[in-house]
Amino acid sequence: MSGDCNIGLIGLAVMGQNLVLNLLDHDNKVAVYNRTQTVTRQFVDDADHPNLTGTDTLKDFVQALAQPRKIILMVKAGGPVDAVIDELKPLLDDGDILIDGGNSLFTDSQRRSDALTPQGIHFVGCGISGGQDGARFGPSMMPGGDASAWPALKSILQGISAKTDAGEPCCEWMGDGGSGHFVKMVHNGIEYGDMQMIAEIYHLLQAAGRDNEAIAQLFETWNGGRLASYLVEITAEVLRIKDDDGTDWVDNIWDKAGQKGTGKWTAIQALELGVPGSVCTEAVYARALSSRWDERQQAADVYQPKPQFGDYAELEADAEAALYAAKLIAYAQGFSLLSEAAREYGWRLNMTNIAQVWKAGCIIRAKALDPIQSVFEQQPELDNLILSDFFKTELTGCESALRRLLGNAIAGGIPVPALTNALAYFDGVRSARLPANLIQGQRNFFGAHEYERLPK
Amino acid sequence: MSGDCNIGLIGLAVMGQNLVLNLLDHDNKVAVYNRTQTVTRQFVDDADHPNLTGTDTLKDFVQALAQPRKIILMVKAGGPVDAVIDELKPLLDDGDILIDGGNSLFTDSQRRSDALTPQGIHFVGCGISGGQDGARFGPSMMPGGDASAWPALKSILQGISAKTDAGEPCCEWMGDGGSGHFVKMVHNGIEYGDMQMIAEIYHLLQAAGRDNEAIAQLFETWNGGRLASYLVEITAEVLRIKDDDGTDWVDNIWDKAGQKGTGKWTAIQALELGVPGSVCTEAVYARALSSRWDERQQAADVYQPKPQFGDYAELEADAEAALYAAKLIAYAQGFSLLSEAAREYGWRLNMTNIAQVWKAGCIIRAKALDPIQSVFEQQPELDNLILSDFFKTELTGCESALRRLLGNAIAGGIPVPALTNALAYFDGVRSARLPANLIQGQRNFFGAHEYERLPK
Repeated sequence: MSGDCNIGLIGLAVMGQNLVLNLLDHDNKVAVYNRTQTVTRQFVDDADHPNLTGTDTLKDFVQALAQPRKIILMVKAGGPVDAVIDELKPLLDDGDILIDGGNSLFTDSQRRSDALTPQGIHFVGCGISGGQDGARFGPSMMPGGDASAWPALKSILQGISAKTDAGEPCCEWMGDGGSGHFVKMVHNGIEYGDMQMIAEIYHLLQAAGRDNEAIAQLFETWNGGRLASYLVEITAEVLRIKDDDGTDWVDNIWDKAGQKGTGKWTAIQALELGVPGSVCTEAVYARALSSRWDERQQAADVYQPKPQFGDYAELEADAEAALYAAKLIAYAQGFSLLSEAAREYGWRLNMTNIAQVWKAGCIIRAKALDPIQSVFEQQPELDNLILSDFFKTELTGCESALRRLLGNAIAGGIPVPALTNALAYFDGVRSARLPANLIQGQRNFFGAHEYERLPK
Repeated sequence: MSGDCNIGLIGLAVMGQNLVLNLLDHDNKVAVYNRTQTVTRQFVDDADHPNLTGTDTLKDFVQALAQPRKIILMVKAGGPVDAVIDELKPLLDDGDILIDGGNSLFTDSQRRSDALTPQGIHFVGCGISGGQDGARFGPSMMPGGDASAWPALKSILQGISAKTDAGEPCCEWMGDGGSGHFVKMVHNGIEYGDMQMIAEIYHLLQAAGRDNEAIAQLFETWNGGRLASYLVEITAEVLRIKDDDGTDWVDNIWDKAGQKGTGKWTAIQALELGVPGSVCTEAVYARALSSRWDERQQAADVYQPKPQFGDYAELEADAEAALYAAKLIAYAQGFSLLSEAAREYGWRLNMTNIAQVWKAGCIIRAKALDPIQSVFEQQPELDNLILSDFFKTELTGCESALRRLLGNAIAGGIPVPALTNALAYFDGVRSARLPANLIQGQRNFFGAHEYERLPK
């Protein structure tokens, strides 16, 4: 038995609800199900839309869908996804399509894809970025898994996704297995780095005596140039939010950063695949360190540091150039990780598509993705963006600003871990010779580890 | 049926052979077994020792041992350890003791301990450091697992272990489950950091125009002071080794550093437990980057960098002080990781014992472990060495040298990722305020993530 809904969605938390409203805006007929029935009923009542069908049981839900069924899961990553799949499976037919739109670990998506394919169910792990607003009005979507599902999904998903200024959909097929969630994971890793580097620049500007409004103005100005991006834009906004008592909201937020784990996953993958992912990794550590608040207060008591970072003529220009250069380097690390993952896991990742998908709708959307997409259009097999003409021009132009700013931060005792790691990576990757020969000599000396002789 | 050997060892690669010779030196009667019989026979022939019994089958091996049997496994970490345990199990009796002396992942040791205890077999995961020479003449040993096995093992293992200058054995009981291999893993993580930081100092001195002999002299001198340590000592030696053609060996080694994974494991644990482990992590990334040699040559072609690092009056003093300070900070990260692991995994780790065990026999043995041990003797519950008076005195004394050296490296374009991360950690942990409030503001702005308000 089958109904006339062309898509179904399970899990009506805020992301799920907003995706449904987005689907309805684009003329889909949507069946929904949520474990707690009152949530479903309330949502359906509030939406009050002729193309929306609420269901109280999974059986009713499945029967409301046209075949082959297309079902989006928006439930908590991990065990809950497996639990829903187990419940659904007996109700599905050959050829039905399951799309996991949560923040699943890519190895879970790989495992689910491998397990469901022989059972005749097409599994798609689809990374979705853009937060609540993205889900409602156009997210960036990164589907991967069983490619035979894509033709049936393409118009639906591209229909609700964000669009670039040129009208391209921010939703393209990523590749096999867990590749969609892998790309989304790297997106989040880049996001961690971006946010940390912005925070470090804010820290330096603060130390130089700028108040929140002055810093907000700078970010607003920068958002009109090459740094134009969602995160730079909202930094200016966040810095200007007032609390009820008229004080700046940002000053009243406890400096203990939380994390949900996707940055950590990215760092672990960088370690596992042997690709330096230092900007993301240090962003994860910086959040961890911020949360060790009691320890920091104790250490501050012990050391009574007096950080110094004087204002200087080029400060604003340096801060802008440094942030821009470090951001490009962090993108290079992210795409390098994608290249290595494609090799290691046997995916055919299209870097042009990935840049396109990130250009709108998602948290890391940025003007800089335009030239990055162009680089990959011209050099689809490029292993490292650092090698491109565009990066050469930009990084060569900005490096002295980055060095000057970091030199002052290091002299002044202000921690800038992500920015210094971006520079260290740049200086390392362009070093024809590194001192690893000494490390190999030591390893051979004490452990008889093998080494190679330098080719003539 | 049982024999009169008080200890047995399986796996006669070089580490296993040397441990057996060490055991024989200390009046043990040793039975040995190796999968390839010719290796066993050759070894027994060469050793020609009345207390050594070679066996051709596992059954003979087990029967040669006095009960309760004590068996050291020196086989390749991972599957081979499980395979040998599976083969051995049916031949063992209640109360027998299995000691895995390989470089096993601590979660494997935890799993084996959990599985074997109900079967009446006492499992011990024992980290062993010191390379071939350590195994032969006194390694550092980190046993953990089933504590009821310790009384029967104590005199044997402490007998063959290294001894500190004060005569304390570099072998103490670490704790339950996988704690022995965890401590060994952190040892290796610290080793990765130490080696990378030494390599970075070598790189800077080279860039300042010093030749290998001049650098060797410096390391030799430093080894007479507060930097005294095995790795500083052998650095001088490695730099002086000549190839047959009279050239310096170190100059002929390809600058692509290998790794066996224990540094990576440490970094992953630091990420998992939320403890900044940046020095070890960047050492792992630095090795990975060094191995991406083709990519580096291409990038060097593109950027044609001209690294500059001029000699200056305080260079030698700065290099010594910077290395010393960064090394202490790396120890602080390592012990902080141990503290967090003890909390998370429910181990009662004794930091004084750990410092003692690392004081001789192992790769990271260093004079600095004396005052570190003293700190923990006085403050056994100290969460972070940074908070100790000793660290305060030393780091405060060295920080300007570290800042000056790194400022010059950053200006000159020489990558010093581990050293800069040591400083960034120091500057971060002693910051009463970090810019994580902005990160929490951004997260709340785009994702409705919860945040806390700063306490008054």
